[in-house]
Amino acid sequence: MAGDGSDQRALQYEQTLMYGRYTQELGVYAKEEAARLRESGQRRSASDRSRTLDLLEYEKGRCAKCRICTVRCQKFLISRVGEDWIFLILLGLLMALVSWVMDFCIAICLQAQKWMYGGLDSNMFLQYLAWVTYPVVLITFSAGFTQILAPQAVGSGIPEMKTILRGVVLKEYLTFKTFVAKVIGLTCALGSGMPLGKEGPFVHIASLCAALLSKFMSLFGGIYENESRNIEMLAAACAVGVGCCFAAPIGGVLFSIEVTSTFFAVRNYWRGFFAATFSAFIFRVLAVWNRDEETITALFKTRFRLDFPFDLQELPAFAVIGIASGFGGALFVYLNRLIVQFMRKQKAINRFLMKKRLLYPALVTLLISTLTFPPGFGQFMAGKLTQKESLVTLLDNRTWAKQGIAEEFDYIGHSQAWKHPQVNVFVTLVLFIVMKFWMSALATTIPVPCGAFMPVFVIGAAFGRLVGESMAAWFPDGINTDGTIYPIVPGGYAVVGAAALSGAVTHTVSTAVIVFELTGQISHILPVMIAVILANAVAQSLQPSLYDSIIRIKKLPYLPELGWGHHEKYNIRVEDIMVRDVRYITLNCCYRDLHNVLMTGHLKTLALVESAESMILLGSIERAQLQSLLSQQLGRPRRMEYIRERAAAEQKRLSVVSNQGSDDGSRRASQEVRFQISTEESSFSPTRAVPQKPLKPALKRSSVMERSTELPTSPHDNSGIALKHLFCASPDTEGLEDDGDVEDDMTIREIAEWEEKQLDEQVNFNNCKIDPAPFQLVERTSLHKTHTIFSLLGLDHAYVTSIGRLIGVVSLKELRKAIEGSVTVKGVKVRPPLASFRDSGTSSSENEATELHKLWDRHKSMTLPREHTPSESDEKSQ
Amino acid sequence: MAGDGSDQRALQYEQTLMYGRYTQELGVYAKEEAARLRESGQRRSASDRSRTLDLLEYEKGRCAKCRICTVRCQKFLISRVGEDWIFLILLGLLMALVSWVMDFCIAICLQAQKWMYGGLDSNMFLQYLAWVTYPVVLITFSAGFTQILAPQAVGSGIPEMKTILRGVVLKEYLTFKTFVAKVIGLTCALGSGMPLGKEGPFVHIASLCAALLSKFMSLFGGIYENESRNIEMLAAACAVGVGCCFAAPIGGVLFSIEVTSTFFAVRNYWRGFFAATFSAFIFRVLAVWNRDEETITALFKTRFRLDFPFDLQELPAFAVIGIASGFGGALFVYLNRLIVQFMRKQKAINRFLMKKRLLYPALVTLLISTLTFPPGFGQFMAGKLTQKESLVTLLDNRTWAKQGIAEEFDYIGHSQAWKHPQVNVFVTLVLFIVMKFWMSALATTIPVPCGAFMPVFVIGAAFGRLVGESMAAWFPDGINTDGTIYPIVPGGYAVVGAAALSGAVTHTVSTAVIVFELTGQISHILPVMIAVILANAVAQSLQPSLYDSIIRIKKLPYLPELGWGHHEKYNIRVEDIMVRDVRYITLNCCYRDLHNVLMTGHLKTLALVESAESMILLGSIERAQLQSLLSQQLGRPRRMEYIRERAAAEQKRLSVVSNQGSDDGSRRASQEVRFQISTEESSFSPTRAVPQKPLKPALKRSSVMERSTELPTSPHDNSGIALKHLFCASPDTEGLEDDGDVEDDMTIREIAEWEEKQLDEQVNFNNCKIDPAPFQLVERTSLHKTHTIFSLLGLDHAYVTSIGRLIGVVSLKELRKAIEGSVTVKGVKVRPPLASFRDSGTSSSENEATELHKLWDRHKSMTLPREHTPSESDEKSQ
Repeated sequence: MAGDGSDQRALQYEQTLMYGRYTQELGVYAKEEAARLRESGQRRSASDRSRTLDLLEYEKGRCAKCRICTVRCQKFLISRVGEDWIFLILLGLLMALVSWVMDFCIAICLQAQKWMYGGLDSNMFLQYLAWVTYPVVLITFSAGFTQILAPQAVGSGIPEMKTILRGVVLKEYLTFKTFVAKVIGLTCALGSGMPLGKEGPFVHIASLCAALLSKFMSLFGGIYENESRNIEMLAAACAVGVGCCFAAPIGGVLFSIEVTSTFFAVRNYWRGFFAATFSAFIFRVLAVWNRDEETITALFKTRFRLDFPFDLQELPAFAVIGIASGFGGALFVYLNRLIVQFMRKQKAINRFLMKKRLLYPALVTLLISTLTFPPGFGQFMAGKLTQKESLVTLLDNRTWAKQGIAEEFDYIGHSQAWKHPQVNVFVTLVLFIVMKFWMSALATTIPVPCGAFMPVFVIGAAFGRLVGESMAAWFPDGINTDGTIYPIVPGGYAVVGAAALSGAVTHTVSTAVIVFELTGQISHILPVMIAVILANAVAQSLQPSLYDSIIRIKKLPYLPELGWGHHEKYNIRVEDIMVRDVRYITLNCCYRDLHNVLMTGHLKTLALVESAESMILLGSIERAQLQSLLSQQLGRPRRMEYIRERAAAEQKRLSVVSNQGSDDGSRRASQEVRFQISTEESSFSPTRAVPQKPLKPALKRSSVMERSTELPTSPHDNSGIALKHLFCASPDTEGLEDDGDVEDDMTIREIAEWEEKQLDEQVNFNNCKIDPAPFQLVERTSLHKTHTIFSLLGLDHAYVTSIGRLIGVVSLKELRKAIEGSVTVKGVKVRPPLASFRDSGTSSSENEATELHKLWDRHKSMTLPREHTPSESDEKSQ
Repeated sequence: MAGDGSDQRALQYEQTLMYGRYTQELGVYAKEEAARLRESGQRRSASDRSRTLDLLEYEKGRCAKCRICTVRCQKFLISRVGEDWIFLILLGLLMALVSWVMDFCIAICLQAQKWMYGGLDSNMFLQYLAWVTYPVVLITFSAGFTQILAPQAVGSGIPEMKTILRGVVLKEYLTFKTFVAKVIGLTCALGSGMPLGKEGPFVHIASLCAALLSKFMSLFGGIYENESRNIEMLAAACAVGVGCCFAAPIGGVLFSIEVTSTFFAVRNYWRGFFAATFSAFIFRVLAVWNRDEETITALFKTRFRLDFPFDLQELPAFAVIGIASGFGGALFVYLNRLIVQFMRKQKAINRFLMKKRLLYPALVTLLISTLTFPPGFGQFMAGKLTQKESLVTLLDNRTWAKQGIAEEFDYIGHSQAWKHPQVNVFVTLVLFIVMKFWMSALATTIPVPCGAFMPVFVIGAAFGRLVGESMAAWFPDGINTDGTIYPIVPGGYAVVGAAALSGAVTHTVSTAVIVFELTGQISHILPVMIAVILANAVAQSLQPSLYDSIIRIKKLPYLPELGWGHHEKYNIRVEDIMVRDVRYITLNCCYRDLHNVLMTGHLKTLALVESAESMILLGSIERAQLQSLLSQQLGRPRRMEYIRERAAAEQKRLSVVSNQGSDDGSRRASQEVRFQISTEESSFSPTRAVPQKPLKPALKRSSVMERSTELPTSPHDNSGIALKHLFCASPDTEGLEDDGDVEDDMTIREIAEWEEKQLDEQVNFNNCKIDPAPFQLVERTSLHKTHTIFSLLGLDHAYVTSIGRLIGVVSLKELRKAIEGSVTVKGVKVRPPLASFRDSGTSSSENEATELHKLWDRHKSMTLPREHTPSESDEKSQ
């Protein structure tokens, strides 16, 4: 897996170009490696401690007191370093600096483009070249740099963080390389002026920071090696990411919770708030110190009037914005997915793009920058404004189109861009919205680090402004209630629109809070809340959120949310969705059974039951553990030992006739095989007759797993015949050297014979790591509860037991199927593929009674003094 | 439990006066009753459906089409009624109306007091009488009314809601009676002008509304009977409560999450936002319609300047406010608890107050209102202002004390109350803070429905104002940075102080959001966030939150939070805290064992294992189930049957000699008892020698349970000798009537003999409800993870297993002990009572290996053809 780097990188490129697929297998390796690292780290810290003590002893001679004092101080500092708040402050500080420096660089990049564009105003063609070449170069560099350094840095990062926080380990996703790639790639991408956002990547960057900081801090204290603590810190880091991107601590925390978590521990709440506040504070203080601002204020400060922010009669217009934004948000997600899928399906395009990796980004950038060229089409859509500038103008508290005539308005500064001598400001706005809409959807598919929040936010603001201007044109003196005239504030509509559209795309309510923090005004709270909730209601019923959509496209291991108020969820039970034909191993199976099980299935974990008749669940064993067991039994070192032993016996026989040679081996073999392992044609079948289906692996990635499993590696021909099918990385390479004293003179037939004998031995689970309490469900557990438990505990699979007996297994896949199946089926209690499984008549207690009876029968029979043959157990269980 | 009402009510009074104790036992009864109600409800709805069909059939003759149409419409409507958003809208509407009407009534009450006080200004004594009598009467009425109607309505309600949302059922806590008592009691209490708040009770009222609405809606659709859905709705209701109390939807949702939940499902987020927004909207719209307001604005609108809200150099002052508020908040919680405990401990006072129930409220009210009498001491502490008025004046954006001279300021309206001819405004503020502080802490111990949030909020605002005025006096021209003069805004300090102190008392960060929504300005976001976080940091390290403090005082079943960054939590494992001597029953035990187990322990659930040697956990059985099993076996009906049988046999013997009579009984008895049930002196002991401790009940309420268990009830002398000790409510009262045909002519000796025989029979678990998958942990599970799982899943206890074998049990109690024990012990890894349990040398895999070995040995021995005697199993397990 580590050998052929270039090959793999090519594969990864293929995977990450336009939302590449993610290989689950990598995660397992990473997890194991992490565990190994943790262990060695603990050992290291222990040795560190003893070393300091030694040092103390050694230095006692000269100025001992001074030394002791230093060591104590050091100890104190180290113990402090372990505290959460130190970590959070460091994280906040770091992220604020990163955010500020990046903003600074982006601003310089954008200024450079403007300067080039402005300097060449003598020649239109040169101007166009400058306008177009600059972003193309930047984006292409960004794409290439990211691809070469760390393809994981591509895209938003929120979907991946959601997956990581669910407990899945994504390989190389939190490394220093990725950090560098993401920061530089993002700076270039945003500096190009494309409609891309920085908040998604910032969540990822903050998580990277946290992970790296954690690694760095673990040099000082041991607490940083705790996994659950690191997950907590990652959750806080996500909040910091959003918080210091928008200088919105509260909205950042809430947004990151909504976007990345399914269940949130209130206990961790303060971490997010603490770090995000500190980060936002530093971020804004840097601006003050840099003389950009006089004091700490909001990023996009508005100045709407406080005393009468809006009229009650304006509320329907706000509601319309909300509903329209809901549809718009769903359309955006759909469009984004459509583009990705189109590029993937068109094989000709796909093949071509695969060869010329940087062509796609360049082409997209060329198209978008051509269309926004200010003297060209850009003049009708405020093309010369950057994202930040357009947002500032859109949130302006003046009315642009009083009484429908754009000319009357006195445009100042950037607002002039919206003014066109021939065209109405309404047309400009509509064109801006339409063009930016598809441009943003297209631009976010470019394989550079980028988010979609900010572009959507701007489009939403423009849409709100459009509605607001229309309202202002319709009611020039405001909607009179009493005598006083309160003119309509289109800027308020822009705020509402921005919150609603970004809320619809991300399926979050907290965009409302972000909007308040961004603008520094909360006076429009009710319109914003109403619009955001309506937008969410519409968008959630039409499409998944943008992040969930990307998760699906990337095929990350995920669990869909239960929809809004689908009551039928409460009626589906685990027994309807569980797989009844569980692959299991018994406590006293032989290696042959192990081999068979490993050959036929591709499950990551296997259930360990007491015996095939009792089916009492004892625990679960990971596939890797079983593989190593098997490899130990059949591996080369053991065969070498056998050969040595044989040679020794031969020698002994030659000198003295003795019969003590293979005592140890025969004793082990003398234990009879009493119980049979289950195979595809297992004798065990539950109480009801159910079509026997083979248990598929928990996650869809089986094809990848198979491929990597069957891969032929180093030509190690005589390392074992039965084993060869199971392993790609030969686990006994190290064993090869130490027994060079005996020659491997066995023929293939001899090896096969020897292996047959080995396979008949009983498995010794002593050195095997068993999970002694895998999660268990009951048949009657509802789908709703199962979903809750799976997302709460981040489960991958759960066994279904009935009074201790294993009767089925539910994995993420089944759960996903059940949820998605019943989401599409409308109407209560219609669940065609599931309902057939359940016999509706049985009540819970009756069911349990039968099970108990069976157990009881089994128990009696087990104490009887006779051997169980497989055929007998068949009769019993049927 | 339902019989002697007056007695119980007296008990309850004793329990609820000044944070009475709560009896856990009630919850169990309520749960069972609820389950019964649910079942009958389902049956009812089914019959309803068939009835409409009948109706359809019957009416077919005349205008069938019309009827069908009506039925369809009805069906459609009913199906709609089941949707969440309908429920949430109704809930929001209801709560907004309740809130508005209550506010209206409270305002009238307060006006009436003012009017009385103002009308009697000729005579100081009469004025004093009026000022004092009015609140005393109102509070006394409120206390009396609540006591008589529903003592559960006393107090805030947030602690109880926290407990309910954790999964505990509190009896009579969500009934209509409580609703009426709470609404009327709260209106009177707040109308009296005492320093009491309405947000805590509003959380309770909203939950009551939700529960009642749910009950009402279940008449239409079946979905309202789902328990997990109701819990979700209760969580949303809590958000509505806070939201419509302050017209703060976002802050309400966040505050309710922080205060009531430990883990929050993001899935339920929208429910809270939706309902709270709708509720806040209606609440404010009502104000507009009532012509109180011109349009929808914030409740306590501020008008601070937007362009330069504060200077960077002011931040240290804000931090000081935060830290001081942290200490203040902890002091408030401590003071509140001290008062309650003082009143409880002083037996003479306690006994006296118990007799004269309404004396305590009256005395407290008299004291407080005397001190606030405006012409008296009240003149130095703005005594004539109501809570709302003082808050409005405190948040004023003008400076009161320019250059330290109070007279210069031009007081308008209510602000005049702060002005005193002789005394500085600083003195007034200090007196206000000090007096209100202890008054609020005292007033919240009065047994009326009341919260502490609002008083604390006002005190915080006053403290902030004090600091702000001092700053303004110190820097009369503001802290100059450049040339421009920006004077200091003391109102901003008041906002910061209010958020910080209320955050410190409740241990929440979301008070910041509430403050923004209350004032309608978000410009001070960074100072507020900094102060709130600092206040939380200080307060959380000193005292529990006010709600947790009340939970402890009321002895509600709770699980303390893990503190800030106590790393030692990560090092404690389940094996350190679990109880190793688990009380269990085996699958083939006899009734005598059951009896013994029930007699010796008081656990609510008992583990069911396969056999005493294997210890394989099969499930858990509730105590009640076992009791009913035992009562069935020993109960009167069965004895009657036996008598009948005996009589029949006698008769038969008299007529024909036969030997078929007791066939059934003897077959059952022929099954030998092979395994012994464990008792206190159980033979089973784990691998390590551990002092055997009896397993205590999961919750501290054992004393209450014991009392109720041993209570002698109706004189039912011959209902069973062995049974008599176990039941208070005799479960076989109904059985008494139906077998009047046979006379109970057995003597006590005969009964004892018969019972002895019955007890030796083997238990038949067929009709027993077994929980087939109780939650399991592993020895190596960390305390941190255990805490997470317990709070996530709302567990009461969990079994500790090792490869299927039961080796221990952890209940809430052990967990609580472990957490509290190590919270008090400072320093890493110092855990005196726990560390001794663990033998540090064993690694995980080694441990598992031994366990497996043992299992294996057991397995071998079980298939051997011999009987297990108890003594043998002793040897094996040791």
